[in-house]
Amino acid sequence: MYNFEYQNPVKIIFGKGEITKVGQNIPEGSKILLTYGGGSIFKNGVYDQVKSSIKGFEVIEFGAIEPNPHYETLMKAVEVAKKENITFLLSVGGGSVLDGTKFIAAATRFSKGDPWNILSRHATVTDAIPIGAVLTLPATGSEMNSGAVITRVEFQEKLAFMSPFVMPKFSVLDPEVIFSLPERQVANGIVDSFVHVIEQYLTFPVNSPIQDRFAESILKTLIEEGPKVLANRTDYEAAANLMWSSTMALNGLIGVGVPQDWATHMIGHELTAFHGIDHAQTLAIVLPGVMHIKRDQKKDKILQLGDRVWGINEGNDEERINLTILKTVEFFESVGIPTKLPNYQVGTDTIDTICDRFTKRGYKVGEKADVGPAEIRLILEDRL
Amino acid sequence: MYNFEYQNPVKIIFGKGEITKVGQNIPEGSKILLTYGGGSIFKNGVYDQVKSSIKGFEVIEFGAIEPNPHYETLMKAVEVAKKENITFLLSVGGGSVLDGTKFIAAATRFSKGDPWNILSRHATVTDAIPIGAVLTLPATGSEMNSGAVITRVEFQEKLAFMSPFVMPKFSVLDPEVIFSLPERQVANGIVDSFVHVIEQYLTFPVNSPIQDRFAESILKTLIEEGPKVLANRTDYEAAANLMWSSTMALNGLIGVGVPQDWATHMIGHELTAFHGIDHAQTLAIVLPGVMHIKRDQKKDKILQLGDRVWGINEGNDEERINLTILKTVEFFESVGIPTKLPNYQVGTDTIDTICDRFTKRGYKVGEKADVGPAEIRLILEDRL
Repeated sequence: MYNFEYQNPVKIIFGKGEITKVGQNIPEGSKILLTYGGGSIFKNGVYDQVKSSIKGFEVIEFGAIEPNPHYETLMKAVEVAKKENITFLLSVGGGSVLDGTKFIAAATRFSKGDPWNILSRHATVTDAIPIGAVLTLPATGSEMNSGAVITRVEFQEKLAFMSPFVMPKFSVLDPEVIFSLPERQVANGIVDSFVHVIEQYLTFPVNSPIQDRFAESILKTLIEEGPKVLANRTDYEAAANLMWSSTMALNGLIGVGVPQDWATHMIGHELTAFHGIDHAQTLAIVLPGVMHIKRDQKKDKILQLGDRVWGINEGNDEERINLTILKTVEFFESVGIPTKLPNYQVGTDTIDTICDRFTKRGYKVGEKADVGPAEIRLILEDRL
Repeated sequence: MYNFEYQNPVKIIFGKGEITKVGQNIPEGSKILLTYGGGSIFKNGVYDQVKSSIKGFEVIEFGAIEPNPHYETLMKAVEVAKKENITFLLSVGGGSVLDGTKFIAAATRFSKGDPWNILSRHATVTDAIPIGAVLTLPATGSEMNSGAVITRVEFQEKLAFMSPFVMPKFSVLDPEVIFSLPERQVANGIVDSFVHVIEQYLTFPVNSPIQDRFAESILKTLIEEGPKVLANRTDYEAAANLMWSSTMALNGLIGVGVPQDWATHMIGHELTAFHGIDHAQTLAIVLPGVMHIKRDQKKDKILQLGDRVWGINEGNDEERINLTILKTVEFFESVGIPTKLPNYQVGTDTIDTICDRFTKRGYKVGEKADVGPAEIRLILEDRL
């Protein structure tokens, strides 16, 4: 394996009933901005649990943060945070609310010009308002990492930033929040988590058996537990296992000392930016194309994935690779996520637009930085 | 799985050549007490690398910390730390040096009476001198956890304490330190790590597939990579995999939300306290006895261990359990660690003494707190 540094100080508070501990984990005297999304927290009881836990704190609320949170919306929250001298951000929602809150945290204390530079130019974040999180949807892993993805609607841009300053101080993971989730959100979470693991695993071997086996452990658990949650939303044990898998998929641990890909995410972000397709849906579309087009470079790991996760150990290499891709596609479709562009009314025009954008940006993606416009075209054409 | 809280802020700096980064991770202006053990760091070049990295800091040295570090020795270091107003402790050694350093860190700032109470009465630690670690031997996991085990020679007592205040701020893990280790220390490290995993895994099922599979991942990696390191001490990749396995075995992650045993450690500590047997050797002696005597309570997990780690999937349950215990014994012996009491010139007298001690203490150990003097006698008699 490669040399690496790893540090993840997020405090995880996991299990049913744990939302009661939110207040005791926020510094006394904090002035809190409570951020949330479309309002599901009012229906599932989470809002009431949180409010009851933070009694005694001064609290201002900022809701209606969208899926793929909008820069435009978040900058309004930044104004509020500045005007009100907010000292703690409490994100109550899924990955979008938390990603948005991370941006609010960094942008409010950003002193070197336009906060857009944090996203567009990777301007270094040197401070942020401390964040706590109550997760209402297992999917993005944002609850235990330093990353966030933000969309600027006017530019049709979906861009990421990372900073240790925006890691949550704590994240409360109560699996019971899953009980009231719509099927589509659960399915998205399963696929998102699955692809997070794949992006850190399905590259080329560097002799990293711990990282590989941990990755396979998460994939196998998602394959087993995901459908249980879809079949019975109130299966607490399955919900807990799905939620913990989702966090472990992107808290950095399985990615230490190994090559990482992220081409699927980078291409998928464009599908969301141009067509508003759910993030996880874009991953389910793009990943099979990446596996197919990069099958030679990824050969050893695709075979290992097939063998260890899907139990594919017969046939020649080509047959095994094809079957491994097929099994992956079938899994996504089995949880209700279509994997072809036409399923989302997307055609060749969009492929041209995305390839143009990557041509203008001038950089390539993938674990060997060799996936440029030509390869992206092949990957997306594979998904027609 | 059970509810849990997990937070592990230790910064891991992993890989060859990384010892050069020690200095930049210590706060400017720190007055350092550099702690070490028997002096192997002078022979393998680690001392020189560390000293070169911390040029410019004021440094005092405290060496000769023993294996199973002695309270008596450590209290001398506490005197030095107080007198010299030490503000940072740099542990350069294996788990014993680091455990000893953790005790120095806590005892120096302990203000509520005799520091012995930290061990004997679990007095709460509320402050500690910050610690950094350069690990020279993969085994104990102390580099990424909050625990330490200390021996008081005059009382023949070996006792543990835990506190988040003594978690290292950083730990440098350079696998090249393994190149010059004697066979016995490598073998001890393999067995110690193996049993750390077992103590958090081989209990009863609580539907925790991520924790189970991660545990099995570490066991399989130890079984594969350990012998490679013993066969060729300069196999960097195997050394790196062993070192990372050892850290992951006891950084708390695989133990979240699941029952834990630790009977093997508690009984083993007594064998060290009375006979000075290496810690890992005591584990290799005791574990097979625990597996045998608690085979009913641990049945489901022993069968799972046999199946998933040792590939034992034929025969009836009793046969599988016996074979799983045998495979474990054979593994320990294959790395050169005998597993019977007579191999260490220990007989029934010691069994009586240990049982008497547990009778006096009045508490039981194991995942169901049901392993008392009578069970301990059976476990140890199984090892005659």
